[in-house]
Amino acid sequence: MTSPARSLSGADGLKVLSVATPGRPFQLESGQVLDHVDIAYETWGELSPARDNVVVVCHALTLDQFAASPNPVTGRPAWWPGMVGPGKPIDTNRFHVIASNVLGGCMGSTGPASQRPDGRYWGAEFPHVTIGDMVKAQIALLDALGIEDVFLVAGGSIGGMQALEWTVQARDRVFAAIPIASAARQSAQNIGFYEVGRQAIMADPDWRGGAYLASGVRPDRGLAVARMAAHITYVSEASLKRKFDRRLQDRQSVSFGFDADFQIESYLRHQGQTFVDRFDANSYLYITRAMDYFDLAAAHGGVLANAFRGLKTRFCVFSFSSDWHYTPEESRNLVRALNAAGCETSYLSIDTDKGHDAFLLDEPEFDAAMTGFIDAAAEARGLKRRDGA
Amino acid sequence: MTSPARSLSGADGLKVLSVATPGRPFQLESGQVLDHVDIAYETWGELSPARDNVVVVCHALTLDQFAASPNPVTGRPAWWPGMVGPGKPIDTNRFHVIASNVLGGCMGSTGPASQRPDGRYWGAEFPHVTIGDMVKAQIALLDALGIEDVFLVAGGSIGGMQALEWTVQARDRVFAAIPIASAARQSAQNIGFYEVGRQAIMADPDWRGGAYLASGVRPDRGLAVARMAAHITYVSEASLKRKFDRRLQDRQSVSFGFDADFQIESYLRHQGQTFVDRFDANSYLYITRAMDYFDLAAAHGGVLANAFRGLKTRFCVFSFSSDWHYTPEESRNLVRALNAAGCETSYLSIDTDKGHDAFLLDEPEFDAAMTGFIDAAAEARGLKRRDGA
Repeated sequence: MTSPARSLSGADGLKVLSVATPGRPFQLESGQVLDHVDIAYETWGELSPARDNVVVVCHALTLDQFAASPNPVTGRPAWWPGMVGPGKPIDTNRFHVIASNVLGGCMGSTGPASQRPDGRYWGAEFPHVTIGDMVKAQIALLDALGIEDVFLVAGGSIGGMQALEWTVQARDRVFAAIPIASAARQSAQNIGFYEVGRQAIMADPDWRGGAYLASGVRPDRGLAVARMAAHITYVSEASLKRKFDRRLQDRQSVSFGFDADFQIESYLRHQGQTFVDRFDANSYLYITRAMDYFDLAAAHGGVLANAFRGLKTRFCVFSFSSDWHYTPEESRNLVRALNAAGCETSYLSIDTDKGHDAFLLDEPEFDAAMTGFIDAAAEARGLKRRDGA
Repeated sequence: MTSPARSLSGADGLKVLSVATPGRPFQLESGQVLDHVDIAYETWGELSPARDNVVVVCHALTLDQFAASPNPVTGRPAWWPGMVGPGKPIDTNRFHVIASNVLGGCMGSTGPASQRPDGRYWGAEFPHVTIGDMVKAQIALLDALGIEDVFLVAGGSIGGMQALEWTVQARDRVFAAIPIASAARQSAQNIGFYEVGRQAIMADPDWRGGAYLASGVRPDRGLAVARMAAHITYVSEASLKRKFDRRLQDRQSVSFGFDADFQIESYLRHQGQTFVDRFDANSYLYITRAMDYFDLAAAHGGVLANAFRGLKTRFCVFSFSSDWHYTPEESRNLVRALNAAGCETSYLSIDTDKGHDAFLLDEPEFDAAMTGFIDAAAEARGLKRRDGA
């Protein structure tokens, strides 16, 4: 297992493409400019001769480009194995699937853990990026790959934000979009939760003003606390009760101490401790900040429907009944705006007690609805059928 | 403003009574023994000649004995001014109201910020206390004050846990009880949230294994993060949206940085920063741990109704519709058990968007229902009426 506390590159077994160079710099929404932008990506399935079968999968906050195959750096398994693969709803026998690590991330794409041309780590001097910048980099990646049209863009959570941004930025290039367990704006409560995590990281003396990589230390304790706080929002109270309730961890009675007496404590500590081995703390700061700044309506005169007006893209919006991080209400607001804009829109709220993370888990109704929407869209697009006909 | 990073005592303008001495030690649920236990308390209203008009008010996690008058140490105003006072639902013209700082607290009662007889601070060597121990100390306080019968015990959140514990421990001494926004057991989700806070505190190098008072430092950064994380659970998403939504703090556009761009960030940071000036980090660890350990059913053979069987106490249970920290569902579970035990029980869920903290805020329906229940109980108890007749 390799720690993210250094720049990753092609040498680590990652596919990486440069989408910006000093002669062709990358303009960020903040006004700042990046002279070098690498985007790390992974693909599955063959690109059709007509180049019309491309699916872009956008990852959530702490995930990466390894949606459908194991991550060679961390050794972790694919994060969306039930959704992307041969015979899966996003069928790699039919589609050429591309997933890339977001700009600002730490799995090979340029971010705060990257080195500048002079060898210094960016750290907290990395310019701030937005969801719009992340998608702009993904579009640049597809341009570099010679791909013009996207059949489908899909993603959950912040991946859903990117899917929405894709339809707006690449207006005529996206045939269908599936934002899952997502929102068109970050809520005050979510800004608050991620601010808690950021404060935990920045309170860690080993953060060192963001320059920890140069010092050979990492703010692991702060990052672990941030992860624990966030993880609670990814699951529902009902699922915590079902999985852990008040059961004790490896003991018959409480310790009258601060050990992890309860399974839920042990579980959260484990989530925190394993996270720090695979994620860069500054990336966590930058990506959560990009989420805070996401507000598609604000960018379109305060009216969300204006973002989507005139789009030919067909949408399928999913939410999960017990998701209190990105609530069904957020998805319904999105659907109302899509309808007001006259977009072809389907919406399904999946009944589950698994909370926000349900989109990553085995949810047969979700899988079936994904398959149904994608197959219908593929037929409308004139792509070959599931049986290859 | 005085910081809690030292022992408080009568010299600070606090009323303090010793309820345990080396000759009469305090036996804790953990099996450990405290040779010295001071309990700091405050009272309002006159004790009737028959000593039958006593109301015990139990405070929530970070509050104290100053329910109805300003705290002379911190300068903060009374925390329940709408509920306790002349003409208020808990009417100090009729009742003798007693509130005490919990055992393990930091407002004059013995806790981890207290000094041992040899002058050393307890710190993390303080023995663990439970909600049962806190109530046992409160009962000892009333014994020391020569008070046998309690007309009413009332409290919100962890104060509600104490109110329930009172009815069980002092079975024949409590006429009426009002647990508000509370539960008969700490949920897995709540254990998780407080574990995040504890980890934030213990990750702060200035915690020093709990021995920070001897070093003249305080884990302020960790405690502030803990407070921020907890504070989000005290309010509802709807109230955060109403009060802050995505509004910016003192700026027209985002900073593309990690400053508190959003009002919600500024608000949470303020909550964290002001909290550390009035609360001891170890007390936070110990009291939250006592909350984790609270499970009234487990202490009664796994059947909650068994805890209440045979009680003559009349109950009024309150919950708030948007409280997701101690949900209405938790209160309904409690009410079902009280009904199963044959206890005289009223229950009201107040419709509000203010979340858990609603019990501390102006909620006219709540106030009116409190008045109605208390007046009826006073009449049943034969106490003098509101008009003095």
